Amino acid sequence: MIYLDNAASTPVHEKVIEEMLPFFREHYGNPSSIHRHGRLANAAIQNARKRIASLINAESNEILITSGGTESNNTTIYGIASQTQGGHIITSSIEHDAILEPLKRLEKEGYRISFLPVDKHGLVNLEDLKKEISNETCLITIMYANNEVGTIQPIKEISQLAREKNIIFHTDAVQVVGKIPIDVKKLGIDLLSISSHKLNGPKGVGALYIRSGVKISPLILGGGQENELRSGTENVASIVGFGMACKLAKEDINQNMIHFKKLTSRLISRVLGEIPFTTLNGHPDMRVSNNAHFTFFGVSGEDLIIKLDENKISASTGSACSVKIQKASHVLKAMGFSHEQVSGSLRLTVGVANTEQEIDETVDVLKKVVQELRTVSPYKSKYNF
Amino acid sequence: MIYLDNAASTPVHEKVIEEMLPFFREHYGNPSSIHRHGRLANAAIQNARKRIASLINAESNEILITSGGTESNNTTIYGIASQTQGGHIITSSIEHDAILEPLKRLEKEGYRISFLPVDKHGLVNLEDLKKEISNETCLITIMYANNEVGTIQPIKEISQLAREKNIIFHTDAVQVVGKIPIDVKKLGIDLLSISSHKLNGPKGVGALYIRSGVKISPLILGGGQENELRSGTENVASIVGFGMACKLAKEDINQNMIHFKKLTSRLISRVLGEIPFTTLNGHPDMRVSNNAHFTFFGVSGEDLIIKLDENKISASTGSACSVKIQKASHVLKAMGFSHEQVSGSLRLTVGVANTEQEIDETVDVLKKVVQELRTVSPYKSKYNF
Repeated sequence: MIYLDNAASTPVHEKVIEEMLPFFREHYGNPSSIHRHGRLANAAIQNARKRIASLINAESNEILITSGGTESNNTTIYGIASQTQGGHIITSSIEHDAILEPLKRLEKEGYRISFLPVDKHGLVNLEDLKKEISNETCLITIMYANNEVGTIQPIKEISQLAREKNIIFHTDAVQVVGKIPIDVKKLGIDLLSISSHKLNGPKGVGALYIRSGVKISPLILGGGQENELRSGTENVASIVGFGMACKLAKEDINQNMIHFKKLTSRLISRVLGEIPFTTLNGHPDMRVSNNAHFTFFGVSGEDLIIKLDENKISASTGSACSVKIQKASHVLKAMGFSHEQVSGSLRLTVGVANTEQEIDETVDVLKKVVQELRTVSPYKSKYNF
Repeated sequence: MIYLDNAASTPVHEKVIEEMLPFFREHYGNPSSIHRHGRLANAAIQNARKRIASLINAESNEILITSGGTESNNTTIYGIASQTQGGHIITSSIEHDAILEPLKRLEKEGYRISFLPVDKHGLVNLEDLKKEISNETCLITIMYANNEVGTIQPIKEISQLAREKNIIFHTDAVQVVGKIPIDVKKLGIDLLSISSHKLNGPKGVGALYIRSGVKISPLILGGGQENELRSGTENVASIVGFGMACKLAKEDINQNMIHFKKLTSRLISRVLGEIPFTTLNGHPDMRVSNNAHFTFFGVSGEDLIIKLDENKISASTGSACSVKIQKASHVLKAMGFSHEQVSGSLRLTVGVANTEQEIDETVDVLKKVVQELRTVSPYKSKYNF
């Protein structure tokens, strides 16, 4: 099996599993309890919080632990919107649904939402952003890197602009944390979403960085855990695992970046060199190092995934989250892609466990299956396949 | 170490851990992905869903998986309130904060909330409930058993009343699922909250039973997982573990009930027999079998917990969730307890791993430390300790 869908989810690191196990077996106390079992669990959470904070150069008390990236994004949208009378939020048209759907709900409730366009590489234009800012703007939320095509936005420039105008700035950074060094202080970010299972931690846990001083309302109310911002018994083992995943990601970030870059460079150059009528999508340079997103003209991406799966290779057309609803990628449409470009798209995202040999095997299989599919393509005569 | 705080959280069953491990190491795919890794993860979730449903005699498609009991409760409150124009909700005054706090938020937004009183045993009166019902009532939410004193409410009668009046009925059942047989069909319940970590499953996962036909709005929006009702990548390993915990709970329910009853009966009879000026709180008969809640007059419950902790026994005064805010128990106050009764309270809740010998050791320690604390009690002369 070759797993090339690391943007959808990643294997849990063995050291993360080791770190979690005692919290199932021995340290199973409720962190709110004042006895030894509870204190041990609570101390472990605080240690994990430090590790999460450290990965993005935040302070421990700026880390809100959630059930994952989607909850972090929802908390941001509703939590900031309810704090202000502003009523206007700016976002991009290529955000994840965990941003777009809450915003669409707010839109129905009377908020005004600006969905910024992107260029053919998936980049937001700063001038477009400036034009949208008004006195009513209470939040700008722009993803750090796109989950489908991997394009990295000019986050520092956006952040500075927001700061100048005194507007809260949030970025959904689930695809980049652990893949590029992030310093929330230097970047001047107010809120930032992280997902554990995108960086070799367990699923079901994530974090929202909330800069000290930023006021936000809780999404989930109850026992008042997480400093009254997220109620519910803390998911101790997963939080501890998430903390370890962040520690490892920080320690290994340079070697991982080199590893990812080596694999995707080889993948991209071989695919573009050996398979005709193929494009690399997203920005050529400003892209997450582990992402390669292609269009194979005349081929259906879904057929390609099934063929790859038959050859024991796991890949995707784009966001895993939107597979069930079978809708065409809103990201690629926003980038101005034609129906043919959208339908021929394939995302391959590498992880720490992938090898150069796996990349070569994948390219060999891809060459074969793309050729096979093109012999029966409705576009056969157009391209003279 | 003797752990007698199983109402706060429970150790994870070894078979549950075994079931989870492959989903960290090998089957780490995103359940929404269409490749083999994704399909395996998705199949595992559906299997777990069946096991969860089976424990309460529900159908698989009636089980919404959440991040825990608190999220299940929040989803109910907001999700039902937003579906109706009713604007009136009935609850009890002894609910968990995960019910009370969302209701207080709704109250601020203009909803009318009736908080039913309880008697000295913590029981809701059906006549009080009937009187509160109006044409505007859209939801009745009454906990199955109280988390502090263990009193079980007349759920079937409440459910029937709600059904007659065509009002949605929800019950927070986190303290009873796996401890008494529950049949949602026979009980006629519309919604029911479950927490995994209360029944020897992992923390950070739970479920909301939603009777087929009941309409509810999602709390968290995004990729549309859980049939559009709960977005976010599914917490596969934890869900699988939760499923196994439900399977075991169903298989072992009779022997567990006998075990719990044996231990608490011994605990209660020895404590009441051997430690003077002590009461058992909650209902004498209608109580969760694993709960013993006492008041030791003239003693501070918190001092008692510290003394027990020094003797390697983990206990609590009441809800773990409310420890940090150091407020007096709203449950005991609603039951009409005096300040002295509240402050002398101690909760001991047994689990599958506890033994009769541990109970005896605990009573021996309790006798000693209660006596010690009473020698320095401000109430010393009142009781002539």
